[in-house]
Amino acid sequence: MKAEIIAVGTELLLGQIVNTNAQFLAQECAALGINVYFQTVVGDNEQRLMDSLKLAASRADVVICTGGLGPTQDDLTKDVLAAYAGCKLILHEPSMKAIEDLFASRGIHMVESNRRQALMLEGSTPLINDAGLAVGNAVTIQGTHFVLLPGPPKEMKPMFTNYAAKWLSALMNEPVPLYSKMLKFAGIGESTLEHQLLDLIQTQTNPTIAPYAKEGEVAIRLTTRAHTEEEGEALMAPTMQEIRGRVGEYLYAVQNVPLEAVIVHRLIETERTLSVAESCTGGLLSDLITGVSGSSQPFLGGIICYTNDVKHGLLGVPKDVLEGEGAPGAVSQETAMLLAEGLLRTLGSDIGISVTGVAGPNPSEGKPVGLVYVGLAQNGKETQVFTLQLSGSRGMIKLRAAKSALYQLWKQLKEN
Amino acid sequence: MKAEIIAVGTELLLGQIVNTNAQFLAQECAALGINVYFQTVVGDNEQRLMDSLKLAASRADVVICTGGLGPTQDDLTKDVLAAYAGCKLILHEPSMKAIEDLFASRGIHMVESNRRQALMLEGSTPLINDAGLAVGNAVTIQGTHFVLLPGPPKEMKPMFTNYAAKWLSALMNEPVPLYSKMLKFAGIGESTLEHQLLDLIQTQTNPTIAPYAKEGEVAIRLTTRAHTEEEGEALMAPTMQEIRGRVGEYLYAVQNVPLEAVIVHRLIETERTLSVAESCTGGLLSDLITGVSGSSQPFLGGIICYTNDVKHGLLGVPKDVLEGEGAPGAVSQETAMLLAEGLLRTLGSDIGISVTGVAGPNPSEGKPVGLVYVGLAQNGKETQVFTLQLSGSRGMIKLRAAKSALYQLWKQLKEN
Repeated sequence: MKAEIIAVGTELLLGQIVNTNAQFLAQECAALGINVYFQTVVGDNEQRLMDSLKLAASRADVVICTGGLGPTQDDLTKDVLAAYAGCKLILHEPSMKAIEDLFASRGIHMVESNRRQALMLEGSTPLINDAGLAVGNAVTIQGTHFVLLPGPPKEMKPMFTNYAAKWLSALMNEPVPLYSKMLKFAGIGESTLEHQLLDLIQTQTNPTIAPYAKEGEVAIRLTTRAHTEEEGEALMAPTMQEIRGRVGEYLYAVQNVPLEAVIVHRLIETERTLSVAESCTGGLLSDLITGVSGSSQPFLGGIICYTNDVKHGLLGVPKDVLEGEGAPGAVSQETAMLLAEGLLRTLGSDIGISVTGVAGPNPSEGKPVGLVYVGLAQNGKETQVFTLQLSGSRGMIKLRAAKSALYQLWKQLKEN
Repeated sequence: MKAEIIAVGTELLLGQIVNTNAQFLAQECAALGINVYFQTVVGDNEQRLMDSLKLAASRADVVICTGGLGPTQDDLTKDVLAAYAGCKLILHEPSMKAIEDLFASRGIHMVESNRRQALMLEGSTPLINDAGLAVGNAVTIQGTHFVLLPGPPKEMKPMFTNYAAKWLSALMNEPVPLYSKMLKFAGIGESTLEHQLLDLIQTQTNPTIAPYAKEGEVAIRLTTRAHTEEEGEALMAPTMQEIRGRVGEYLYAVQNVPLEAVIVHRLIETERTLSVAESCTGGLLSDLITGVSGSSQPFLGGIICYTNDVKHGLLGVPKDVLEGEGAPGAVSQETAMLLAEGLLRTLGSDIGISVTGVAGPNPSEGKPVGLVYVGLAQNGKETQVFTLQLSGSRGMIKLRAAKSALYQLWKQLKEN
């Protein structure tokens, strides 16, 4: 079944609120095996709403509307759909009683317009509102299935989950749900990954393979239809094997988790502790790591060493490495190495990772914007330093440097 | 002028991401005096994208598309619009050069598909991508004005603000250009601010007043039409005076800058240095501060003191404050105070700010999730501690705690 989601509300067209309802309904439809082909936002305008309903009915089997069920003159969705269907609006008595009871219990006079919230299309299925006053509707008109839901997410979500989803499921002939999994990659660009998998992406139909780019990370999603997880896994197995063979070294998770979460769990698993020394990333690397629940177990802390005094005083980098004629300088392999090693002494962690570089917008020490060194020290092992040449704004360079540091750390951790 | 916003991307139809681009563009159009009548989301499908472009052209003067400009086979927006216009795609040489330079500077082989990102419709105006690789396009086809923007918000927003908005403004018949300014607030909630200004927001027409909520910050935008800055200022003066009278104590800037930028500039102006000690914010506070260009002048660095050992060892908080029966504990007024004061000794800054609390998801030391203390120490002044009770996810609590710390710091700095 093909579906269209229509959100009704001038506040969306003015950008006063973001359309999170569309995302929720899109996810729910995918889980039900309903394909959403379009999402539309239209204002509280009778003619344009009518046009949108007609268009949606012409290209979709299922039309899910949110918004416009409230008590005000702006709330038009039921009126317009009734006009489209050529039917009357009638009172849904249980909803009317719930509205009257609520006003009575609060000792407030009920304004007449509240009756509008209890109206439903004649012949439709009422959808109960467990979290508010406006009753929803589900109705089939000339072969198109319409679902009317309220706009506030707190009312819309339970109404969909508890009532509308069942009504929709009952309509489906062979409801084979979608089964999908996300593959997350690090250390490889979106276009390079896609290049490696291009023939699969273009020819593969079961499962389908879709690339997804996220800031500093790359993912692909495999999707098939399966009744059980076992069946889904079996259908995906040959494709998974092919992908692992081609780009397995960059695959860090087969679920939608950030790289730092995999790192934190690997540290916990192997009972190792971590600390960080950040110059150009300025706290971002630590922020990413501490965003993971449970990070307080392996992550001891960090030092944001924005000045040479801090690099020297807290992490023991000799002054003559940092400054002076012919010195390597704060942005250098030597400093990255010494910062990482200093962490093992100062914070007593098993692993220390350092980042020093030029985030911009101006060069520093005569070194170009985007030059970044990542140091990785481990007890009993030789310290490694990685040189990066990054581009973008100050914020982008910070992010790419932090993500690169995480990638190098992950590579180390998965090997031992 | 009437506009339609089309977001292109299967990931939106599957609900994998929320359509924040539509909200941003809706707000920007409102500010430009362009009326958005429809928003549409369509997948990476040639035929349906073509249908959406035709429909939008039939009912709007301006069609703004986001997404589908990347290097992959899924990225179809330029191809489909070129087919609609019956024109060729040509190479935008400066963008091609930027792409080649980037790959060369990283020493990576450029996959051929990256050339797609430098394509533009013949006869169109290129829109420069300052934060990524795909060039945007602006072009008028049979009387309809099309703007093609990339999907990633970090690329889309600056391209719209710096290039597309000007192209659109030049099309408008309005003889008097728009003049607007953003008022940024801290330490006051969106609903409280709106409540204080509700009568102005509802009745004011020149300038118009529109609220904008951003995570952890609150803003309103005043917009009028004026030929000169002087005329614009004069038209806004009475409204500005009224707003300052009501909520002036929370107004930190009359331009669209983050609170941390105001703080960094104030520190430079008053020649003072800053350092931070972060427990529950885990680096986020430092990350926000170091996101500001020029922050390396006043910001000396920070210590992410995730363990009691670090709080004690590097910042001198006595062990019996941190642990043991009857001790205040790591999450306490005492610890926040001692961490902030420890910064003045360890890092030698004029001001030290500390954050310690429970980010969740689990309580710590028997203290509830969301309990956070902010300490503020200054040479020669009594240390202050602020107690916060925050709500939300782990990420939200980190963000709200960091923003609250910035707010307290700003209040101090503006007074002296």
